[in-house]
Amino acid sequence: MRDVAVIGVGLTKFGELWDKSFRQLIAEAGSKAIFDAGVSGNEIDAMYIGSMSSGRFIGQEHIGALVADASGFSQLHIPATRVEGACASGGLAMREGYLSIASGMNDIVVVGGIEKMNDVGGNFATETLATAADQEWEAFFGVTFPGLYAMIAMRHMHEYGTTKEQLAQVAVKNHANGILNPYAQYQRKITLEQALNATMVAYPLGLMDCSPVTDGAASVILCAAEKTKKFTDKPVKIIASGQGSDTLALHSRRDICTLDATVHAAKMAYKQANLKSSNIDLAEVHDCFTIAEICAIEDLGFVEKGQGGKAVENKITTLDGSLPVNTSGGLKSKGHPVGATGVAQIVEITQQLRGEAEKRQVKDARIGLAHNIGGSGATCTVHILEAV
Amino acid sequence: MRDVAVIGVGLTKFGELWDKSFRQLIAEAGSKAIFDAGVSGNEIDAMYIGSMSSGRFIGQEHIGALVADASGFSQLHIPATRVEGACASGGLAMREGYLSIASGMNDIVVVGGIEKMNDVGGNFATETLATAADQEWEAFFGVTFPGLYAMIAMRHMHEYGTTKEQLAQVAVKNHANGILNPYAQYQRKITLEQALNATMVAYPLGLMDCSPVTDGAASVILCAAEKTKKFTDKPVKIIASGQGSDTLALHSRRDICTLDATVHAAKMAYKQANLKSSNIDLAEVHDCFTIAEICAIEDLGFVEKGQGGKAVENKITTLDGSLPVNTSGGLKSKGHPVGATGVAQIVEITQQLRGEAEKRQVKDARIGLAHNIGGSGATCTVHILEAV
Repeated sequence: MRDVAVIGVGLTKFGELWDKSFRQLIAEAGSKAIFDAGVSGNEIDAMYIGSMSSGRFIGQEHIGALVADASGFSQLHIPATRVEGACASGGLAMREGYLSIASGMNDIVVVGGIEKMNDVGGNFATETLATAADQEWEAFFGVTFPGLYAMIAMRHMHEYGTTKEQLAQVAVKNHANGILNPYAQYQRKITLEQALNATMVAYPLGLMDCSPVTDGAASVILCAAEKTKKFTDKPVKIIASGQGSDTLALHSRRDICTLDATVHAAKMAYKQANLKSSNIDLAEVHDCFTIAEICAIEDLGFVEKGQGGKAVENKITTLDGSLPVNTSGGLKSKGHPVGATGVAQIVEITQQLRGEAEKRQVKDARIGLAHNIGGSGATCTVHILEAV
Repeated sequence: MRDVAVIGVGLTKFGELWDKSFRQLIAEAGSKAIFDAGVSGNEIDAMYIGSMSSGRFIGQEHIGALVADASGFSQLHIPATRVEGACASGGLAMREGYLSIASGMNDIVVVGGIEKMNDVGGNFATETLATAADQEWEAFFGVTFPGLYAMIAMRHMHEYGTTKEQLAQVAVKNHANGILNPYAQYQRKITLEQALNATMVAYPLGLMDCSPVTDGAASVILCAAEKTKKFTDKPVKIIASGQGSDTLALHSRRDICTLDATVHAAKMAYKQANLKSSNIDLAEVHDCFTIAEICAIEDLGFVEKGQGGKAVENKITTLDGSLPVNTSGGLKSKGHPVGATGVAQIVEITQQLRGEAEKRQVKDARIGLAHNIGGSGATCTVHILEAV
């Protein structure tokens, strides 16, 4: 396989973006990334776009071609492919873009992720997100994602003594990081007390344990490592791409506190990179709910199973901790435009490894990991990046 | 890039399958292909699934993981990825599966395609198909696919003298082939008179110029060419994979009678295979409407632009013609479960190149081409396969 590197990144502001269309958002993120990389349009061989449910959110499938068109590439007729794996759609786009270069088919690829979630009324966003769960065994009977992750949290508390305070501390930390990220949906501090006293959504998860509904887009430019010199002196190499799957329905899992798709994807990634979890300097993990971040740091091997809550309590994962997690603010504070999230994580890791993360910069960051989950863990991608 | 071959194929019956669920259909096609290839579950490295709009048709996104689960692979946690490009979703799944092996990441991959279209009421299937067109510039204003292809047909008739009889002859030919395919939705002969006198849908396209709404699934097993010996003595090599894109909206094209995504994908494929269009022995092309087959044989270079109608009239594309097209019955007669179509085309070409197409067998078939279109031509894949 050929080596592949990230040579450019771009992000829109995340939030409730009533004044920007789907086309505008993806074109903005894409053009920022292209400008950052310094590539010209006719050097681009292909595009991969992650989006979870554009068909339901904006009545538009077929968005690979739409994005190529909206980006001004329709006259080049380049391959443009959408991939979908619920909230891991961005991570999947990243992986397919990576493989297409690793194979030798392409040299330079645009990877984008996008979701426009606020343009629908009533419960439609929640119902649409529930299509990432098992429709026949879960969603049809009324369970939505806060309920599914609440079950995981209850079991985690029962098995390992994880506390509601520890969950809340994930949110407090991620908001503290989000303040430092100008692209984050929420740039405000929250206290432990506020998090604990927030409106209950599905016990034990309150409003501050849940990521929001967000509009936004992210883009990265990938390039065959042997050809990056023309564009940048700071390429960030993708040293591993792992992916795993699991049952859609929680009830079919051997253990609902362990996301085996993460365990599998991480194993694959560490093997490819020839690294251990202890070699990782910082990570963006999929904190769609606070309990998800706790499971993630366990399943990625950063701490032992059951010790995630304590690790958060002990400040290991803060910006100045031994393993900073979600320096971007994570899904909780940066926002979670579902199809964009996996690509936005790569943007953050790349900025950190380039030393361009400004107030959020992790000192001496050399190796970063991005962990993206679909649904309640039926899809997972893990990418490991290294500053060259 | 490593060479890749097809080592197994599987298909469900196509039709109005009220008694079979989405899960059952994809599991049936997949298990047939796995049985045909003689691979065991734990030899499979990954799955790629093409589906256009499961989110709208059955309220279920995230179907990569669902398919892995329904196929009994959830305990293996293998990567399972859905790709979408409207009616070209199957062709895109084929291409991503191919690239993942060509890259060296995987050795054996299951590629599936599926759509369950009949379980919705009213105009919902037509509205959902229209999400493959440009929502903001076409679908929102009421145009649906028969209308879009009718515009192409009208212009083709105006520019090149193509006749309604020539369009009808595409349908007559494809039904004649479909009679010979036990998996086809319609296994009945139609006459030229019947086709010409069918209920008008959008002038000049009558009911017999339109492919139907179909449930169905298809699957193929891909394998690194160097590893096929264990499984088969009849591997069918994928000698090219081309892909192109174009504007979603017809009005933005330089010429609505030429599908530039096809021209681009075909050019890419012929170059990779080091072949000319005259080297192709048979082709499955995307006849969602009769005019689409005429455009396809022109844009693929089988005949000159504008001569497609005459080629059909002169019986060049019949089963015993010099270039048999849509020996399976095509989308018109075999049926068009949109996400499955691109994979089903590979099934047909593989069976022909193995000499297993029974009553539809093309003599001395050695090189076959599969052409899959999304929407009115904004996405296209072209694959060329060769009997080893």
